[in-house]
Amino acid sequence: MSQKIPTRLYLSEDEIPRAWYNLRAVMKDKPDPILHPGTLQPATASDLEPVFCKECVKQELDETTPLIPIPDRLQEFYRAYRPAPLIRAYFLEKALGTPAEIYYKHEGTNTSGSHKLNSAAAQAYYAKEEGLASLTTETGAGQWGSAMAMACAFFGIGLKVFMVKVSSEQKPYRKALIETYGANLIPSPSNTTESGKKILAENPDTGGSLGCAISEAIEVAVKTDKCRYVLGSVLNHVLLHQSIIGEEVKAALDKYGVKPDIIIGCAGGGSNLGGLIAPFMGDKIAGKSNTRFIAVEPASCPSLTRGRFAYDFGDTAKTTPLLRMYTLGSGFIPSANHAGGLRYHGMNSVLSKLYRDGHLEARSEVQTDVFKAAVQFAKIEGILPAPESSHAIKAAIDEALECKRTGEKKVILFGLTGTGYFDMTAYMSYNAGTMGDRIPSDADLERGFATLPDIPQNQHTSP
Amino acid sequence: MSQKIPTRLYLSEDEIPRAWYNLRAVMKDKPDPILHPGTLQPATASDLEPVFCKECVKQELDETTPLIPIPDRLQEFYRAYRPAPLIRAYFLEKALGTPAEIYYKHEGTNTSGSHKLNSAAAQAYYAKEEGLASLTTETGAGQWGSAMAMACAFFGIGLKVFMVKVSSEQKPYRKALIETYGANLIPSPSNTTESGKKILAENPDTGGSLGCAISEAIEVAVKTDKCRYVLGSVLNHVLLHQSIIGEEVKAALDKYGVKPDIIIGCAGGGSNLGGLIAPFMGDKIAGKSNTRFIAVEPASCPSLTRGRFAYDFGDTAKTTPLLRMYTLGSGFIPSANHAGGLRYHGMNSVLSKLYRDGHLEARSEVQTDVFKAAVQFAKIEGILPAPESSHAIKAAIDEALECKRTGEKKVILFGLTGTGYFDMTAYMSYNAGTMGDRIPSDADLERGFATLPDIPQNQHTSP
Repeated sequence: MSQKIPTRLYLSEDEIPRAWYNLRAVMKDKPDPILHPGTLQPATASDLEPVFCKECVKQELDETTPLIPIPDRLQEFYRAYRPAPLIRAYFLEKALGTPAEIYYKHEGTNTSGSHKLNSAAAQAYYAKEEGLASLTTETGAGQWGSAMAMACAFFGIGLKVFMVKVSSEQKPYRKALIETYGANLIPSPSNTTESGKKILAENPDTGGSLGCAISEAIEVAVKTDKCRYVLGSVLNHVLLHQSIIGEEVKAALDKYGVKPDIIIGCAGGGSNLGGLIAPFMGDKIAGKSNTRFIAVEPASCPSLTRGRFAYDFGDTAKTTPLLRMYTLGSGFIPSANHAGGLRYHGMNSVLSKLYRDGHLEARSEVQTDVFKAAVQFAKIEGILPAPESSHAIKAAIDEALECKRTGEKKVILFGLTGTGYFDMTAYMSYNAGTMGDRIPSDADLERGFATLPDIPQNQHTSP
Repeated sequence: MSQKIPTRLYLSEDEIPRAWYNLRAVMKDKPDPILHPGTLQPATASDLEPVFCKECVKQELDETTPLIPIPDRLQEFYRAYRPAPLIRAYFLEKALGTPAEIYYKHEGTNTSGSHKLNSAAAQAYYAKEEGLASLTTETGAGQWGSAMAMACAFFGIGLKVFMVKVSSEQKPYRKALIETYGANLIPSPSNTTESGKKILAENPDTGGSLGCAISEAIEVAVKTDKCRYVLGSVLNHVLLHQSIIGEEVKAALDKYGVKPDIIIGCAGGGSNLGGLIAPFMGDKIAGKSNTRFIAVEPASCPSLTRGRFAYDFGDTAKTTPLLRMYTLGSGFIPSANHAGGLRYHGMNSVLSKLYRDGHLEARSEVQTDVFKAAVQFAKIEGILPAPESSHAIKAAIDEALECKRTGEKKVILFGLTGTGYFDMTAYMSYNAGTMGDRIPSDADLERGFATLPDIPQNQHTSP
């Protein structure tokens, strides 16, 4: 560490990773397998291929290949916006008066505004290669929909996005962005699908939900020729694509001999956190480091900190395979937290397993505290963070202040998953002092857990 | 050029310029001096210092120092978001099938979303160093207001932003962004100033104008203790600060032995274009290159292509010093083009002189053609451009297609001044097919020219 560390730790184009890091391959204790919901047997490729494109299914089930090559054409696309900046937070360190070193990986410099593009590009690429004509997906806050629209425009493949109706109304600019990139955007629930019609018949005035949008998107994918469904988080192949985040960070830090003591990421479905920590967690599992890993989730949707480790569906309509994960139950309804990207009842199964086995810590944060940290960060570091990312900022500031108290010079790294340009209503609410948060009661949680599938595998579920 | 050129041409932190390039110092034929509007004599520092901070005034009048050092603390700030990416548009080249090489400098990766931050930071820094307590400014489209709010939050100095009322209503998220950074935002015209009250008395329902907002901001700056006014374009010190754009581009291209044949920038007040071309124009004036320089302006506000070369006021209230420039008259009212940053009646005096002397070309573009190019670019290169920047994109595409016709392998460089995330209403209008444009008639222009000051210096004005 004799070399002076720049504010931005650069990687050259040649140093962008050429293979993804498959964390599962280095885990000694593997996550439990995905189950077919009918047979309760481990899902096979042929179970999943009617819904997802083939290469993604292959990656989803691959527990053994440590490094999976990134195709040339996809590398070419990545070079248009990567490497994402890794920034030393000199200004924040000084403002906090901490002896800690703070670094953050800024994934928000592309037009979709977040890390989501890393997997969107991969999924669009593989779909095109397979000869598919179109894809379907859902979006809530809009980051994933934007990323898929950009990726599909680039690779030349059709896209239908079911956007949670209330979000499409509250975020007209997100909607416009997705449409500008040529995607067909349908507010969900809609009359274009059976599942949408069913929901509308029961509740004509509903604003929709992510679970409902997923059901509509899967239905269209399964019923349409040469069409598949893509998902922006939760699944293992998405985590795999996001490992490029952690690999870039590691390559840049290695150049300067920096080793993180604490790595922090926000956690919704888990793809950003899983991607950020992947190679570092590999080192820890191999006994090469003692890095601490911290997942930060909203207090309104605390799947790791208050959920159960059980087999559960990925969607509220209970149509997906079963994943063993920390979950609040697919019927859990989180309150309207502004960090839409973190409002998910479950958590990726790799991260769930790592948490279960004590390799990963977790904490939850209240929305107003998160926005306080967000505004502080924006003024000091000059970047307006997404509400999701701000959960990681809050925890990083807390850890840096703890170092100030103890005098320890720890190296803290966090993931800045995206920018908040399309989240200004949340900032307006915070600025006006009208922002609140709603932490679920134990009874709320019990109602969610009651929706867990009643199967033999779940007989021994526990917190 | 034997070396393979990467998609992103990197500069390391050490290569960020440490001095600004003062284009006027290398011009053999200098621009005409700023005049005091009362005496019609060249303005002195003491004429300007009641309005602007001292160091900016010094820079405004400096015609001789070729390189002006960037203070250390400001360099530190620049390192938080610079160097801005210089991108080889491989995808666009391929999509157009052109033999030309296309490069663009992407100034939109900082939170303010544009190049404006380069000068905002400098002006906030100097104001703080001078011991001022606060600053005032105006903003129309909002980029400048956002940039000043970020800079003032960082350097710890107060800021009052007069935002054109109709913009503050049409762009609530821009307003929220400015307020999140702690600035005091006042829709203009307001009852807080004499000039605002006067305008409201005459026209209570007005949506305001940039000229009116400038008048309010200057009035407050002059009447308030330890307060000065800052402007985001037009003036020479702003161009000077923006020269970091061109210097970074030149340093990056020099590393790969690339020499641009054509440099293109959008032109409103001229600061982005002036900054982008500065060192390259210096080379041309010194006889070291034959680069062509093209300013692109909106057909609705054609100050270079249809304006007069005359002394004129910078604001509609006619309170500023007189600048000799291409102008449509300070009373010219451009139609409501979505590229708010280009809706200015005049043009920086250095650029005006260069155009007058044949060193700079100019063309104008119709809004719908500009948005067609913007959407094409967004889908191919993955970046959603600001409406202003898209004028340069349109011209770059045209030049690349001309190369395709002639078979010439020209090197085309353009400035991507910013992103369009806060301009989605414009994209919505374009997507819906409801976007138009209004090109001023000759009679419209005559009405504008009639507002030019009737002074001896203007007796020989001509197109």
